[in-house]
Amino acid sequence: MTVYLVGAGPGDPGLLTRRGAELLARADVVLHDRLVSAEVLELVPPEAVRIDVGKGPASARRRGGSTVAEPATGGGGRAMRQDEIARLLVEHGRQSEVVVRLKGGDPFVFGRGGEEVEVLARAGIPWEVVPGVSSAFGVPAVVGIPATQRGLASSVTVVTGHAGAVGADGGPDWEALARVGGTLVVLMGVTTRAAIAAALVRGGRAPDTPVAVIQDGTTPAQRVVRTTLSHLADVELGPPAVIVVGPVAALGTAAAPGTTAAPRDAPGPFGT
Amino acid sequence: MTVYLVGAGPGDPGLLTRRGAELLARADVVLHDRLVSAEVLELVPPEAVRIDVGKGPASARRRGGSTVAEPATGGGGRAMRQDEIARLLVEHGRQSEVVVRLKGGDPFVFGRGGEEVEVLARAGIPWEVVPGVSSAFGVPAVVGIPATQRGLASSVTVVTGHAGAVGADGGPDWEALARVGGTLVVLMGVTTRAAIAAALVRGGRAPDTPVAVIQDGTTPAQRVVRTTLSHLADVELGPPAVIVVGPVAALGTAAAPGTTAAPRDAPGPFGT
Repeated sequence: MTVYLVGAGPGDPGLLTRRGAELLARADVVLHDRLVSAEVLELVPPEAVRIDVGKGPASARRRGGSTVAEPATGGGGRAMRQDEIARLLVEHGRQSEVVVRLKGGDPFVFGRGGEEVEVLARAGIPWEVVPGVSSAFGVPAVVGIPATQRGLASSVTVVTGHAGAVGADGGPDWEALARVGGTLVVLMGVTTRAAIAAALVRGGRAPDTPVAVIQDGTTPAQRVVRTTLSHLADVELGPPAVIVVGPVAALGTAAAPGTTAAPRDAPGPFGT
Repeated sequence: MTVYLVGAGPGDPGLLTRRGAELLARADVVLHDRLVSAEVLELVPPEAVRIDVGKGPASARRRGGSTVAEPATGGGGRAMRQDEIARLLVEHGRQSEVVVRLKGGDPFVFGRGGEEVEVLARAGIPWEVVPGVSSAFGVPAVVGIPATQRGLASSVTVVTGHAGAVGADGGPDWEALARVGGTLVVLMGVTTRAAIAAALVRGGRAPDTPVAVIQDGTTPAQRVVRTTLSHLADVELGPPAVIVVGPVAALGTAAAPGTTAAPRDAPGPFGT
């Protein structure tokens, strides 16, 4: 009896790992977040118990919805609380052979997977983490934006911008992040994008720093907008979205299926 | 005719994506780095042309070797030069239907994938990026170390520590990184670990900041050592290794298969 914390990847079911797919196929119980895509959930056998622990606000559930990790409790108050999820994990972990906790992206990158493993370990329930393709790297990659690139970015930092993380104690220090330079990838930051852009400019990042916003990345609904820090607030995209800040955000192609035209005159150097 | 840049993941063939496995199975030509594991290479059909573009120093090729991305030219001078790799990609991309450029971890996280896509785009050859599980997140996850954790790390930064990146112009600013706090994951940093630890302490990170070093992560040869910044220089592990710096590095289990005992009295809070 084991509880497997499995990363579902960013949305495209082809980006699930082989091990993740194999575990889903023999799962007795699957507890999944709201942002795990419908295409990935189709891999769950019909006889398995399927529990959606992340029912969130309808506005954030989209057709072809991708799986940028968001806190299950974020947004609408209708999501299951983390302690309730923990209780279910322990309950099913004690009763069933193969329990899969399926999370969007990677379970250990802003997915609260660490907290869930802690609960399982304390309850004496065997656990295994099956990492997934993180939306932070995978979503930009699919449109040709590398997280790092020689001469452009020698580091990449991933942060969350969900409500409360901007300016809050314990949240990221946006001005310190600005001073590091490199690439910054913001998950769950689309609703707080104006405050984030302002803090980064205050910290010293140039207002004309390239920014790419990718909504519903790797799914048929994917949309990409290119902009700059000074115009990030005006972008008309909604969650779930990945925001890439830094010179690499000007790379890649706007010609990927389903993408919107870039609000720039010239395509990125990879544009084909 | 397309060149697919495919992430092989950190080493365990179960961590390859479904799409990556499907493309390998129908590849005409596979150009791979030296750190792609033997188990992943077994998925290449015998009739496909297989080119090892990353022959590196023998000391870095290990049995069950994992795939922490390292520059193909790093270390021993025997690796193929990047311009030679680019030439081969274009040549095969013009001749064959399915060309797979297989890279350890994720092709766009310190994998020079961006540069290769640029070359392909310039030559008019269609390309597609198939992201992989990055060693930066996947290797720590498998031993129970989350990249982020509420209350412990609200950001994660991935940097490379390969020779030349420490103190060099254009390399990461280690002292600025120290000021960001959060989790720092260093790839290719095992040989420069003493200089990295010193720079981070100089930048303000506490000498007793927890550090985990994971060699050959996700493979049968995996070894884990727990230490602190002040003792990082003394760790006796070699490449390929992932170094995790920050409070999360004290989490996880030392009981994972093949791991060494932690040089600490108490196991991490997840220890089972």
